Amino acid sequence: MNIEMIRAAAERLKGHARRTPLLSSPFLDEIAGRRVFVKPECLQHTGSFKFRGGWSAVSALTEAQRKAGVIAFSSGNHAQGVAAAARAHGAPAVIIMPSDAPKAKIANTRGLGAEVVLYDRAGESREEIGAKLSSERGLTLIRPYDEPQVIAGQGTTGLEIAEDAKTLGIDKADVLIPCGGGGLTSGIAMALEAEAPGLRARPCEPKEFDDTTRSLASGTIQRNARLAGSLCDAIITPQPGEITFPIMKRLCGPGIVVSEDEALRAMAAAFNHLRVVIEPGGAVALAAALFHPREIEGDTVIAVASGGNVDAEVYQGALSRFA
Amino acid sequence: MNIEMIRAAAERLKGHARRTPLLSSPFLDEIAGRRVFVKPECLQHTGSFKFRGGWSAVSALTEAQRKAGVIAFSSGNHAQGVAAAARAHGAPAVIIMPSDAPKAKIANTRGLGAEVVLYDRAGESREEIGAKLSSERGLTLIRPYDEPQVIAGQGTTGLEIAEDAKTLGIDKADVLIPCGGGGLTSGIAMALEAEAPGLRARPCEPKEFDDTTRSLASGTIQRNARLAGSLCDAIITPQPGEITFPIMKRLCGPGIVVSEDEALRAMAAAFNHLRVVIEPGGAVALAAALFHPREIEGDTVIAVASGGNVDAEVYQGALSRFA
Repeated sequence: MNIEMIRAAAERLKGHARRTPLLSSPFLDEIAGRRVFVKPECLQHTGSFKFRGGWSAVSALTEAQRKAGVIAFSSGNHAQGVAAAARAHGAPAVIIMPSDAPKAKIANTRGLGAEVVLYDRAGESREEIGAKLSSERGLTLIRPYDEPQVIAGQGTTGLEIAEDAKTLGIDKADVLIPCGGGGLTSGIAMALEAEAPGLRARPCEPKEFDDTTRSLASGTIQRNARLAGSLCDAIITPQPGEITFPIMKRLCGPGIVVSEDEALRAMAAAFNHLRVVIEPGGAVALAAALFHPREIEGDTVIAVASGGNVDAEVYQGALSRFA
Repeated sequence: MNIEMIRAAAERLKGHARRTPLLSSPFLDEIAGRRVFVKPECLQHTGSFKFRGGWSAVSALTEAQRKAGVIAFSSGNHAQGVAAAARAHGAPAVIIMPSDAPKAKIANTRGLGAEVVLYDRAGESREEIGAKLSSERGLTLIRPYDEPQVIAGQGTTGLEIAEDAKTLGIDKADVLIPCGGGGLTSGIAMALEAEAPGLRARPCEPKEFDDTTRSLASGTIQRNARLAGSLCDAIITPQPGEITFPIMKRLCGPGIVVSEDEALRAMAAAFNHLRVVIEPGGAVALAAALFHPREIEGDTVIAVASGGNVDAEVYQGALSRFA
């Protein structure tokens, strides 16, 4: 895993992934007490940064691997990112999803051309189902974060942040990143190390699912006590990855932990002042930027809004309470 | 009014206005039955394309005019566009707003540094108040659409559409534009005439407020029967402008008229598939693209989403009914 892989992924993504801008609003600056820039990966294809990793991984396959196809386990954003990237490459995609996943996500993943295989969370092992399908059909597994080409793809987000920060004259800032398994955070951290060493990556997590924050504080990988029951489902993983954690440990500043209500308030603020739709998990970094000012250094902060795939009901709830 | 004024405005806006992209989703293509691209001016500074016209007009003033300040009549997007542009140029701005305008819009306009003067719609004449203030203080009036430098600023949207269409290999398409007084529509039409002659500008309006559509059909300026009572308030004007109408008559294809419910459905579709927030008036062009396929020519359509300044309650209503 090195910066050259991220640069090579950026070449492969060129003209395919959306080059997202940095958004800002004087009203957000006022709430935060410093300049705030938001990197809206909710505007990325399939509604999250996961398209970058999916594209990077699929485009790095050999012709024979692509022809055989890919497989992924995901109930959410990774599923759609891999499905869209595979379709564009003419590669068959099998996505293993729990049968109780939101119908819209299942429909969207199918709509992107993937074969969705449902399994029963209680009685079946998705790993067994996946292993059987993979060996039968020669599918290549694309892991959601602990996979070098996926990390390389997510890291292209960091190259863009570094480039735009240079244009804006920002040479020192905390870069806040919603963190699940750490693919996006570690990729951005490596890109910033190479291209904008005054910018520091910092993982952001929801309360009670702060495995990475605790892992960074203790120096060893810590697990979450539970894996369900958060509106921030898009960024809930059991623990930081074996590949991602050492990178984060070497490069990242301390994690920031926000409440679910703070994430919903950040969604409402983005609705009012940026007109972009952010999902709860994708809003934890903006929530940290707006509502945890004393944990942040410097006069400028950059927050990644990692995705926007939120159910209308959850979104309406955020607006009715906080907009 | 000519293309050179639009090109000059683009130079003045460079690095100040946001360069908005063209967004797309396979799910929108499926609804529309053709390729759909959306130009999200809701992501522009102050949440609408009006920032372009405001910036163009203020930046074209002499030093002395800027020092004296500007004045505008507006309860909405034009107010915020002028206020933000004036502040950035160090020009005082007075905005005349009706006292029953939404509190959030008054607060936002003040938050952008403007002096807001409220008037009573029933008992006072805003023109008299404005004329008095202008003569006392030497303020320059910035009209919302029938003003060459404002049209030039809005026209920069068309230069960007032409440039991106070229990159995408689109040489023929209808370009659908939410139309009030016609500043945006006429500006884009002129830019397309010069830079992408295969792209045709077409005004889109809400039912019962289709003055421009009827004016184009009859060849002479027609008025709306009423001016209030539409959720699409951002694009309701008495009639097309004296400057804008002849340009639209020369260059535009027929108007398209959509229902308010279609605009709300388009807002919900943009929420689900593009993750951008569009206001009802700003969604009429996307509504035409999605729900009026037989009125559109060609295999590709480009819809401008002109603004995103919508009250949370109205937005929640759109999602609960159509998302």
